[in-house]
Amino acid sequence: MAPVAPRSGDAIFANIERVNAELFTLTYGAIVRQLLTDLEEVEEVNKQLDQMGYNIGIRLIDEFLAKSNVSRCVDFRETAEVIAKVGFKMFLGVTASVTNWDAEGTCCSIVLEDNPLVDFVELPDNCQGLYYCNILSGVIRGALDMVSMKAEVTWLRDALRGDDVFELQVKLLKQVPEEYPYKDDE
Amino acid sequence: MAPVAPRSGDAIFANIERVNAELFTLTYGAIVRQLLTDLEEVEEVNKQLDQMGYNIGIRLIDEFLAKSNVSRCVDFRETAEVIAKVGFKMFLGVTASVTNWDAEGTCCSIVLEDNPLVDFVELPDNCQGLYYCNILSGVIRGALDMVSMKAEVTWLRDALRGDDVFELQVKLLKQVPEEYPYKDDE
Repeated sequence: MAPVAPRSGDAIFANIERVNAELFTLTYGAIVRQLLTDLEEVEEVNKQLDQMGYNIGIRLIDEFLAKSNVSRCVDFRETAEVIAKVGFKMFLGVTASVTNWDAEGTCCSIVLEDNPLVDFVELPDNCQGLYYCNILSGVIRGALDMVSMKAEVTWLRDALRGDDVFELQVKLLKQVPEEYPYKDDE
Repeated sequence: MAPVAPRSGDAIFANIERVNAELFTLTYGAIVRQLLTDLEEVEEVNKQLDQMGYNIGIRLIDEFLAKSNVSRCVDFRETAEVIAKVGFKMFLGVTASVTNWDAEGTCCSIVLEDNPLVDFVELPDNCQGLYYCNILSGVIRGALDMVSMKAEVTWLRDALRGDDVFELQVKLLKQVPEEYPYKDDE
């Protein structure tokens, strides 16, 4: 496992503006409920949550880079470690682990044992196809996009569907070389 | 001003599970944007945000009572102070002030100078009728409802509409006497 600096988001998380986790959990629950009412199809809700996450991710990456003091990651392997160890800690206050690397170092799993989004949540029977936390996959996809890594993010395990943990597979599809350290105004 | 115990939510806020404020801000922004897309009418979005807030408030009050060590408030005046000084601090990490009491002690204003919901937010021209933070009025209404106070909560000032602060008028409509300290299962 490549060393990353900093190794954890603990110190950053301690010094950052925060709001009550339960308020966040309930607010997120209200979004999902709203989407289920408005869109009806669970598949559409999954898509919408992913898209909302994407829109959040492309902005959250700025806060991440500004506050985390993470220097440019050398490769996707290091990037995944930083997302799991620094990113999840810095934003959700939990740590994730990275496992199941493929031989090429372009596909891995991020495993979350603790997930504040799902406190008090139980899926009713008519929502079994729902990826309740799909906003997270969108956030990762959006954030990676802004550092020129096109990725596909899919759920392999979901504790709300009876698995023991949450497992997100992150697959690097394409890495666009950047010529400048910062993007031009868009 | 009646003394309330505890006088502030600082200590509670410091010891509570929290998430990054910017993640919360962006997530809330994503909800509002989603509602604007789905519902089209700004007036409908205001209603929906208020309803979502109400649903959050009726649950958040449990966390509030469990963690705040606030004992039963003697009257609406004390309740308003607790919402402003303890509630806002405990959940959003900011303090609000209470002003503009009417003679009967049944109507006051809660004034917010700092509001994490609106960081980076500017309303586009076609959203001028939007009460962007309407979820807050719903949360207060819902939480009060659960302690048997029916209230009407309306915005008097809104910094996103050019005012200098956010001012919520909270008007007690009816106080239902409770016979038991806890509600029966519903």
